[in-house]
This record gives sequence, structure tokens and C-alpha cells, in this order.
Amino acid sequence: MVYAVSWSLLGLTAVAVALEVVYRFLTRRRPVREVLFFPAPLVCTEPLLSPGTWCSCPLPHDLDGALPQLMRRLLGARRSLELCVFTFSSAPLARAVLLLHGRGVRVRVITDSDYMAASGSQIGALRKAGVEVRHSQSSGFMHHKFSVVDKSIVLTGSMNWTMQAIQTNRENLLITDDGICVRAYVEEFERLWEEYDPASYSFFPEEAERGP
Amino acid sequence: MVYAVSWSLLGLTAVAVALEVVYRFLTRRRPVREVLFFPAPLVCTEPLLSPGTWCSCPLPHDLDGALPQLMRRLLGARRSLELCVFTFSSAPLARAVLLLHGRGVRVRVITDSDYMAASGSQIGALRKAGVEVRHSQSSGFMHHKFSVVDKSIVLTGSMNWTMQAIQTNRENLLITDDGICVRAYVEEFERLWEEYDPASYSFFPEEAERGP
Repeated sequence: MVYAVSWSLLGLTAVAVALEVVYRFLTRRRPVREVLFFPAPLVCTEPLLSPGTWCSCPLPHDLDGALPQLMRRLLGARRSLELCVFTFSSAPLARAVLLLHGRGVRVRVITDSDYMAASGSQIGALRKAGVEVRHSQSSGFMHHKFSVVDKSIVLTGSMNWTMQAIQTNRENLLITDDGICVRAYVEEFERLWEEYDPASYSFFPEEAERGP
Repeated sequence: MVYAVSWSLLGLTAVAVALEVVYRFLTRRRPVREVLFFPAPLVCTEPLLSPGTWCSCPLPHDLDGALPQLMRRLLGARRSLELCVFTFSSAPLARAVLLLHGRGVRVRVITDSDYMAASGSQIGALRKAGVEVRHSQSSGFMHHKFSVVDKSIVLTGSMNWTMQAIQTNRENLLITDDGICVRAYVEEFERLWEEYDPASYSFFPEEAERGP
């Protein structure tokens, strides 16, 4: 009798475990693994930037391409966007960033000190709108091109945020929510954010390193 | 009696499933998820390139840094290395590629037509050694910086294969064996490899597109 009850208990446990496995399988969050390739055809991204409005411009309004997909990922931010990009001159991407800033998402930008002043750079417009921006001050380029959405999705690859990169170059952008990767990029961002704090600027860093 | 036997069978099945789960857990392959950040300190990578030899150069021989880690990943290739890189002037990385080529690993390189001729480029040396190289021929940069090891691990990020990138710039390199990502990069490589086939060179591509 005790023997039969033991097996029955084991059987019931098996059923419970199986139900739990099936439940977890059905309710699992699908991991984010995407790769976008550029160049992408020039399209009107107005429907993403001004939802509900109608745009009569002559550009195609197909929103399946790589640029709209990238913008959707960025515009999905609810709390924070960390952006670490060598050169930033794309007007649609700047509008997306400003839209997030306007919605109260905390946007922080790290960029390269030389290239932030290049022709067409959007960094000035972002600063003017109140977006927090810090820039490199050491020799060598701040050559990263990554962003982190809500500290849970990282986007990284070869692509600078320029129209040439989007429309003309061969570029890639890997998008993942893998925890190990996201943590690594968040930590790198925070490290650089502290390092490039204007409060600790040294205008002659090499001199400072050598001492007086 | 039949009832007891049913529960017993269910119990036995549960034990078998549990054993299978434990076995799979213990023998599972750990997924590759790494992020390397640069600049990395200059170190002697001779022990990786000439295993078993002793190097007396004055450089540090610490092989824990980002460059040795990158080189170990590349040198782990047994069958193939696809390399798609905008600019390639790093001598240690060129030696790693030549070592793989010498071992019989099929190495294929895609690069940018303008930058392959830049000062210090290693592309000529690779070609001379018999490595298959193709280059862009359209306007816009072939700006990718990714590689695929044995069609199972992809390395992508902001880093060109130059000493400036490795030693001076802020750069990142994400390394993953995620199947979705690897497939996407392999397909992009094959697409470009076909597109840049010298047999289909058009020296005036814009003219060709317009027709005679």
C-alpha cells in the first residue's frame, strides 16, 4: 500500500512538473536576436515620429526596412536610452532621440570630441534641447557605435548614426537582449560617462599624467 | 491493480525524464557570449602565433587582455574564417590570419576598395600569401567590421583591424555563437562575396545601370 502511494505521489509530481514546463514554454519571453544590414532604401519615417499624422511627401512609406526597424527599437524606450556613437548626423535618428527626450525618457549621449563638431552633426541640436551629452577628451577616437534601450536591449555594430551609413555604406547592427552582453555595454557606458564628466576635464591630459 | 501499475509507469517515466534533463544540463555546451573592449594594452602576442617558442622582447607577456582574447578566438578556427573588414593594418592580426591560411583553414576576406590601399594595409601581404580577397566596387564604404569563425561564432562591433583601433580608440567587439545572429552574418558575407566577384566587375557601374 505504502509502495503504491509513493508511486502515485511521484506520478502526481511528474504531472505537476510537466504542467509547469508547458506553462513556462507557452508564456516564455522570446529573446531579442536581430541583425539589421544597411544600406537601406530611403523611406519616410514620419509615421513613426508623428504617429497618427499623414505625410504626403514623395518618399516611399514602407516601414519594413532597416531604418524603420532601428527607429522602432529606439522609440520603444520607456525609461532610458544610452547612446555611445562616434558621429551623429542623421536627422531622422536625431528626431527620434528628441522625441524620447520629450517623453521623459532619460537620454544620455557620449560622442567623439572631434567629430561632434563635424558638418551636419546633430549633437548641438540635442544639447540645445537639454539632452545630456558628454564627449571624449583623450587622444584616439571614441569610436563606439552602440546604444542601450531601457538597460535591457543593446544595439551594436559598424554603423555610425549618419545618412551616409544608412543610405550608402555596407553596415551591420546586431540587436540583442542577452543579459551578459547588455551588462557589459551598460558598464562600458557608465565607465565612459564618469571618465568624460566635465567636472574632471583636464585640458592637457598628457601633461597631467606626466605630473608637473 | 491496473491503477497501481499506471501510476508506477508514470513514476518511472518521470524518473527517466528527470535523468535526461540532468544529463542534458550537465553535458550542455555553454553558449559563447563575450564583449571585448578596447583600447587594450600593447602586449607580446608571439606565444599565440608561435606556440612553444620563447620571446625575449620587452613587451608585457600577459595574455589576458582583449587583443590576445580576440586572437585566441580567431586562431580557434578549424575549417573557415570569413573576414569582412573596412580597414586592416594590424600586423599581429595579419599574422594570425596567415597562420590559419597556412594551416589549411579557408580564409576569405572582403574589404573596402579605397582603404585596402591605405598606408600600412595588410591586404597586399594576404593576397601575396594566397588568401582569397575581394573588395567593394560601388560607391559608399564597405564599412563592416565582422568576422565569422567556422560558421559558428560571429565577432562584430566598431573595431577596424588597425593598431590605432586596438591601442588607442574606444572600441567594442561582441562575440556570440547565437544561431540567428551567425546565420545572418554568414548570409551577408556570401551575398557580398558574390556581389564583389571579379568576374562580374563593372568599371562604370552607374553607366551599366543606365544601359547603353
